[in-house]
Amino acid sequence: MTKNKKQIKFGALIHGVGGNVSAWRHPEVPADASVNFKFYTEQAQTAEAGKFDLVFIADGLYINEKSIPHFLNRFEPLTILSALAAVTSKIGLVGTLSSSYSEPFTVARQFGSLDHISGGRAGWNVVTSPLEGSAKNFGKPEHPTHDERYRIAEEYLEVTRGLWDSWEDDAFVRNKETGVFFDPSKLHRLNHKGTYFSVEGPLNIARSKQGHPVIFQAGSSESGKNLAAKGADAVFTGHETIEEAKQFYKEVKERTVAAGRSADDVVILPGIGPIIGRTQEEADRKYEEIASLVSIESALNYLGRFFEHHDFSQYPLDEPFPDLGDLGSNSFRSGTDKLKKAAKENGWTLRQVALQSATPRGPFVGTPEYVADLIQQWHEEEAADGFIIHSSIPSGLSDFVNLVVPILQERGLYRTEYESDTLRGNLGLPIPENRYAAAAKVQVGS
Amino acid sequence: MTKNKKQIKFGALIHGVGGNVSAWRHPEVPADASVNFKFYTEQAQTAEAGKFDLVFIADGLYINEKSIPHFLNRFEPLTILSALAAVTSKIGLVGTLSSSYSEPFTVARQFGSLDHISGGRAGWNVVTSPLEGSAKNFGKPEHPTHDERYRIAEEYLEVTRGLWDSWEDDAFVRNKETGVFFDPSKLHRLNHKGTYFSVEGPLNIARSKQGHPVIFQAGSSESGKNLAAKGADAVFTGHETIEEAKQFYKEVKERTVAAGRSADDVVILPGIGPIIGRTQEEADRKYEEIASLVSIESALNYLGRFFEHHDFSQYPLDEPFPDLGDLGSNSFRSGTDKLKKAAKENGWTLRQVALQSATPRGPFVGTPEYVADLIQQWHEEEAADGFIIHSSIPSGLSDFVNLVVPILQERGLYRTEYESDTLRGNLGLPIPENRYAAAAKVQVGS
Repeated sequence: MTKNKKQIKFGALIHGVGGNVSAWRHPEVPADASVNFKFYTEQAQTAEAGKFDLVFIADGLYINEKSIPHFLNRFEPLTILSALAAVTSKIGLVGTLSSSYSEPFTVARQFGSLDHISGGRAGWNVVTSPLEGSAKNFGKPEHPTHDERYRIAEEYLEVTRGLWDSWEDDAFVRNKETGVFFDPSKLHRLNHKGTYFSVEGPLNIARSKQGHPVIFQAGSSESGKNLAAKGADAVFTGHETIEEAKQFYKEVKERTVAAGRSADDVVILPGIGPIIGRTQEEADRKYEEIASLVSIESALNYLGRFFEHHDFSQYPLDEPFPDLGDLGSNSFRSGTDKLKKAAKENGWTLRQVALQSATPRGPFVGTPEYVADLIQQWHEEEAADGFIIHSSIPSGLSDFVNLVVPILQERGLYRTEYESDTLRGNLGLPIPENRYAAAAKVQVGS
Repeated sequence: MTKNKKQIKFGALIHGVGGNVSAWRHPEVPADASVNFKFYTEQAQTAEAGKFDLVFIADGLYINEKSIPHFLNRFEPLTILSALAAVTSKIGLVGTLSSSYSEPFTVARQFGSLDHISGGRAGWNVVTSPLEGSAKNFGKPEHPTHDERYRIAEEYLEVTRGLWDSWEDDAFVRNKETGVFFDPSKLHRLNHKGTYFSVEGPLNIARSKQGHPVIFQAGSSESGKNLAAKGADAVFTGHETIEEAKQFYKEVKERTVAAGRSADDVVILPGIGPIIGRTQEEADRKYEEIASLVSIESALNYLGRFFEHHDFSQYPLDEPFPDLGDLGSNSFRSGTDKLKKAAKENGWTLRQVALQSATPRGPFVGTPEYVADLIQQWHEEEAADGFIIHSSIPSGLSDFVNLVVPILQERGLYRTEYESDTLRGNLGLPIPENRYAAAAKVQVGS
């Protein structure tokens, strides 16, 4: 193994039964996987056996009759991640939580607490909640606009980061002889008064050994990319082609540098859904098998969710994808924009769009060598620093760990042992300095 | 063992280093216990070895320089309980969460998720947040009044209970052949529009096998007792004497019956701090040892917290306890009222009040037989259905489990094996029927 090669990072998206809207029908999976702790434990332990950097738990704040089955009844991210902390020891624990419908004091505490429980392995995927219906579950007159949600998110992050610095790392003296528990000069109140939040502090939990939980960002719109460049440690994105991925990668890294940070301060991780076969034909067959479980009705429901739960059953299936105007721009903006454009350019019918959306095939379908080659190529050509694996087939994760990971290890592209026991350490991210300790240093030096 | 005798229930309060403000100074405890997952795991497993019904995690939303040391830096209840779910299998997992500074949709989900992760062992201690400073951490102009907090709590509970019933127990069909995941007629929207909350639903998690998480209530003011009678499954209370405890017990049971419920529908659990010695002298010595760790400064700080962080250092220590007027009535009302009255009646000095508050001795100090006798007496005379153990000395819980529990088991007063794997099952509480299923039955029957 050549130590010098830049190492690929891996995460595993665990969400019930994988990315496919009908994967719960597959004979190999427990149909209740989305609320099955044993299933989550096995997935997390498989990923840890594969030396993955992290597991990732997605989330949403609104459901209705047309939602994806495993979204109807699923674990809440902070609770399931905390439970997984107890059954794993090295892997990072990243979860989605909305900055549009929560309180920064609570969220800073809960992720801070997860970070202590896990010994520095917590990560928070800051989302602004794409689903308009969320407002109705939180007594809000309306869902904030896309731009406002991102302004809220930016201030929100500022507040949580400030709260995480409430205590300097050496604040807790804990001298049993003298009875001095902490040094009051190392305790800091945030006293934040902003446009959206007013939070005094201090937070009632110290920093963990990784300083702050790792901040993920998963929006790929303009606002999303800017938030990532200014404030994220990692970006979870999604691309159909290497060209598109390279373009996104370049753009985010450039914006990060423009925001005064190093390009290495943000790790870019596209989601991929590898399907592995001993031969290309076997892999194709596995894809067809899972695709065949999806009915056109559930595919239309799946598609509708991205467009503010629009009812697509009103259109003819085999005519060109309907003109939807602005629909979708206040929810999953980057995804819906891309889809509308592609449908128009390629003359796709509604049926084609729905089925492709519900069971995206993606390029990572083939033999272990084929998938390893492709991963190496994406990595070397700067389309990705690593990948989030969200296979649409039940054995997707264990196939990947057992068959693809050893090839990448053999090539010196991927760790054989964890370098660190914190998520930041494994992702190669710096530990953020405590803002007050940093300020004190400057004062002393000046 | 006489099966017919009504069994005593036990819970263990785990909070860092026990109930004493200076217990972290004791040579036997890790000084970082309040953020030490290993310590929490050992405590929970000790309680489970003792067949306890539950562990209990307290909470607070505001700290300042004068807060109790182990409150400055501690785990958040939902995250630590979720982690403990993975390292225990039978014991209940109960945590405090404020209804004054949170969102019912989120809280219903998080406790629902903990309930699924743990297989039906979750409990929620609904508090209204006594600390006035909490408002400053949540951007609120002011802390709601005591009465309003209880009105909020009542509506809040109504909403969470409604959300927990979103799915009837047989709603998830999960037929892999037909592709039917759920029965839409068994999915219900709450559509709650009240004074304080407006929540549409449905919740994106099903009921667990215990129906709803067990609802705890810990306020002993008039509003607290009424909330308990109307809506709680269990009450965590605290009394100095058996007479006081009997009075409280009788009152809450009567109010529960008056509210149209059975007296057995609410379990009353006073907190006690047993200190066990081989002889009475050894037990007394252990108490003196822990009491001697408390300085008068930290005792004054401890006392101040109950009175809206009042600064008691301004008064002479050895003169009668000062007249504080209404101070404390909008925070820990029942406790501060009682304390003011007792100080006046007994002519206590400030020093006496502060030291007694910081290291309450309580009656449960003595040999294992002595403590077992007292527990039996409180139980038989209807002062308690059970007890929450919060020993102020580090070995308090394991001493209790190893020395007192066997005596009570011998006497047929306490289980030798768990009767159930849910918290409701062990506490002998009924599983709440789903409101919509119940309504449908009535319709069919009519």
